[in-house]
Amino acid sequence: MPRYRLLIEYDGTPFIGWQRQKNQGSSVQGMIEEAAARFCGVAVPLFAAGRTDAGVHASGQVGHLNLPRDFPADRVRDALNFYLKPQPITIVAAEAVGDEFHARFSAIGRAYLYRILTRRAPPSLNRNRVWWVPTRLDAARMAEAATRLLGRHDFTSFRAASCQAKSPIKTLDRLDVIQVGAEIHIIAEARSFLHHQVRNMVGSLKLVGEGKWSADDLANALAACDRGKAGPTAPAPGLTLTGVVYPEPPGWGM
Amino acid sequence: MPRYRLLIEYDGTPFIGWQRQKNQGSSVQGMIEEAAARFCGVAVPLFAAGRTDAGVHASGQVGHLNLPRDFPADRVRDALNFYLKPQPITIVAAEAVGDEFHARFSAIGRAYLYRILTRRAPPSLNRNRVWWVPTRLDAARMAEAATRLLGRHDFTSFRAASCQAKSPIKTLDRLDVIQVGAEIHIIAEARSFLHHQVRNMVGSLKLVGEGKWSADDLANALAACDRGKAGPTAPAPGLTLTGVVYPEPPGWGM
Repeated sequence: MPRYRLLIEYDGTPFIGWQRQKNQGSSVQGMIEEAAARFCGVAVPLFAAGRTDAGVHASGQVGHLNLPRDFPADRVRDALNFYLKPQPITIVAAEAVGDEFHARFSAIGRAYLYRILTRRAPPSLNRNRVWWVPTRLDAARMAEAATRLLGRHDFTSFRAASCQAKSPIKTLDRLDVIQVGAEIHIIAEARSFLHHQVRNMVGSLKLVGEGKWSADDLANALAACDRGKAGPTAPAPGLTLTGVVYPEPPGWGM
Repeated sequence: MPRYRLLIEYDGTPFIGWQRQKNQGSSVQGMIEEAAARFCGVAVPLFAAGRTDAGVHASGQVGHLNLPRDFPADRVRDALNFYLKPQPITIVAAEAVGDEFHARFSAIGRAYLYRILTRRAPPSLNRNRVWWVPTRLDAARMAEAATRLLGRHDFTSFRAASCQAKSPIKTLDRLDVIQVGAEIHIIAEARSFLHHQVRNMVGSLKLVGEGKWSADDLANALAACDRGKAGPTAPAPGLTLTGVVYPEPPGWGM
């Protein structure tokens, strides 16, 4: 069965997350699978690079599915978007790929953006897109501390209890903290992340930004390999999966 | 009565526009006036720098109102935000100003951003924030043509029939067109604009971006002083009022 790689954008607000779960509500995966079933008449399972949590968004999620017969990739994209209406889920691009491609197992990099709005007044235009923190945070202090998490570590302190990864050891390639107007943007890149790892790192970086923690406190939290020693989990709506990297870059046009 | 200047952000999607209109639905002005009445116990009229249309957003609208007695400006901001919940309207900042200040008549500049998403797939994350144009537009061609509208002109060709301005002569100080990823951003600045002027200029610039119009066609449309000679009005949701300029910059902290 011909396989297609999909570039997927969604507003995570109304969904229980990426993953389909019986009787739990609407999932992004379930909505796209339903659209695919309506398009080609048979049930087709969809696999994604990262199973985002409820309320988490994506501008660059990647998935794959097998269709019962060959279609032009652009027709797959347009048909899925047609059947996805009015859900806030978009197939930005589609591309025919070989059977060896797997959205999750072929991926060699994931990139996330976490947005914090730091002002006294709550968000209106970016509601459900940012974590509203009504106090000032020192972005330069956060940026400096963030470098202490770079590299290969046991990230148990930033791992959700529900995490199913075999090993807590991950290599964090990028953790930039930049001030963008009234927002602080945290950009995280790694081959892969533990469950809640980005949100847990952000929750601890916020303590650094408030001056409650030093960079050493953050390094000690990491070294403790104990979830209880790190900060709280930052809320889901601030997080967006912005991109997934594969050894061979996609050839799709948008 | 002490006067306060307000910096206002809103998602224009659920509103009939800035202006209160009897039996027409919820307006941004009406919602803030209602919040102010609940805060200080008396009805207080609110004036704005620009009366945005239904569906148009603001990140930098400015208004003013008189309150029956002195309050710390931060308390005005926080109290209005409290009573505005859960509306997508935020008082970003408040500041005490003199009686000579008028949000509309003291303003010496207005800035707007218009966002066009140019890709085949519809928007999900930025739904209601962009004009979705599913074809390619040549941003460089649009940018070059846009310069033909700069300066002091009779903008009758880009003026809504409903426009109440005394004169159609305006001075356009800036009309930049820039490509930002899959979006084209059009930034317009002037002392003031005619009703629908930005959206009408964008509607014509789109014709240039599609290759249907040359820069000369745009210049000829302007020179014709005839609304029928210019392009259609671009949709409201792509437009955001991003800032208002006064002779003395505000002293508010956010």
